[in-house]
Amino acid sequence: MKMKVLVFFVATILVAWQCHAYDMFPLRMNTGYGARTPEVKCASWRLAVEAHNIFGFETIPEECVEATKEYIHGEQYRSDSKTVNQQAYFYARDLEVHPKDTFVFSIDGTVLSNIPYYKKHGYGVEKFNSTLYDEWVNKGNAPALPETLKNYNKLVSLGFKIIFLSGRTLDKQAVTEANLKKAGYHTWEKLIFKDPQDPSTPNAVSYKTAGREKLIRQGYNIVGIIGDQWSDFLGGHRGESRTFKLPNPLYYIQ
Amino acid sequence: MKMKVLVFFVATILVAWQCHAYDMFPLRMNTGYGARTPEVKCASWRLAVEAHNIFGFETIPEECVEATKEYIHGEQYRSDSKTVNQQAYFYARDLEVHPKDTFVFSIDGTVLSNIPYYKKHGYGVEKFNSTLYDEWVNKGNAPALPETLKNYNKLVSLGFKIIFLSGRTLDKQAVTEANLKKAGYHTWEKLIFKDPQDPSTPNAVSYKTAGREKLIRQGYNIVGIIGDQWSDFLGGHRGESRTFKLPNPLYYIQ
Repeated sequence: MKMKVLVFFVATILVAWQCHAYDMFPLRMNTGYGARTPEVKCASWRLAVEAHNIFGFETIPEECVEATKEYIHGEQYRSDSKTVNQQAYFYARDLEVHPKDTFVFSIDGTVLSNIPYYKKHGYGVEKFNSTLYDEWVNKGNAPALPETLKNYNKLVSLGFKIIFLSGRTLDKQAVTEANLKKAGYHTWEKLIFKDPQDPSTPNAVSYKTAGREKLIRQGYNIVGIIGDQWSDFLGGHRGESRTFKLPNPLYYIQ
Repeated sequence: MKMKVLVFFVATILVAWQCHAYDMFPLRMNTGYGARTPEVKCASWRLAVEAHNIFGFETIPEECVEATKEYIHGEQYRSDSKTVNQQAYFYARDLEVHPKDTFVFSIDGTVLSNIPYYKKHGYGVEKFNSTLYDEWVNKGNAPALPETLKNYNKLVSLGFKIIFLSGRTLDKQAVTEANLKKAGYHTWEKLIFKDPQDPSTPNAVSYKTAGREKLIRQGYNIVGIIGDQWSDFLGGHRGESRTFKLPNPLYYIQ
């Protein structure tokens, strides 16, 4: 008898506790949170990269290669790219345009896609090899990111100045100009390259910030910055601009 | 015969064009990009919110209610929350802890979940009703966000000071203290509330910034800020901290 009472008592507590738990935090966790699939885990990793919670990584997690590949070649990447470019356009459309109003674009991963390169190099799981990457860049065959090209054309039509502030080095000027035109980017106000000899800009943040500072000094009014790296936005001298972070789950530039 | 030649010619051009297109931008777009499903579109919307490309919205898009509900109650939200809290812990673990080293936490949506409220109010599709929300807060039944609680316990164990910088108003002090304890947050250095009479902090950014500035003046060394809103991080006076943006697809606080 005692045993029955005890069992009944324990059961009551368990039921009460479960109801309470459900009421307190009504999430379905049937899928086994402890054993997150790589798909779920890697989606979290990717989100954390986009929101700048994870940064400074040299390579993507090994277990995320497949998920990254699926993301990049599936419709989500393109949809994500479209949503961000659309926001930039919606914002621009409502602005009154003055002659020096400028959108600053990064190039690689933003206006030109380097997915053809990363496709052959493990989607970011291999350590960056600047020799091989430069060889690829020097072919001048990078395709446009279609959503960025569409947005670019709209911004040009609206009358904004377009300035490409690229992390590419000065020796890439000719190939970059040709590649941009081939990909459909037919006009720009300036195309700025990095001087690898300049000691004042040891990393991407300082280089991009110095570049923007100079543009502002030259009288440009930066109203928008479109890039795929957080280093395109950090460091200040953004004027009154809004920033638009395009998705990039493949690599991180310090 | 002429017809056959023409057909052959057209076919050759089509094949060449397709190969070229594939070579130039090798993305699979079979799924019909033009007709994005709400699931894909809303995932893009959510990502854009997290990366601060979309902000200032009063309600979530109507077509995204179902996707938001699925996200919140599925394992992705918890996984996303875990990944960010984990990053905060990994960062903290490697720091040398000094007596005034502090993690600043927001409360609602960060340490306490308000999903039970939003579950009854359309997952953010209904305009915010402060009367109903305050009624819910005053019940003092908000559950802990499990991943944040786990991280909190680890940070406390490591010896960091915990300061809750809440958007809640002063009249909520008693119920908030009780709710925090009930949810498992057993200790804190400070619990800061908003004075609704203070004209110097008209919005969340200015309030949170002023709060951090005061803490720094009082000698606290803010090493980390954990919140679910961008207004928890913007506005400066972040010390040398790293910021950790927890996912929140339900609402935006200006």
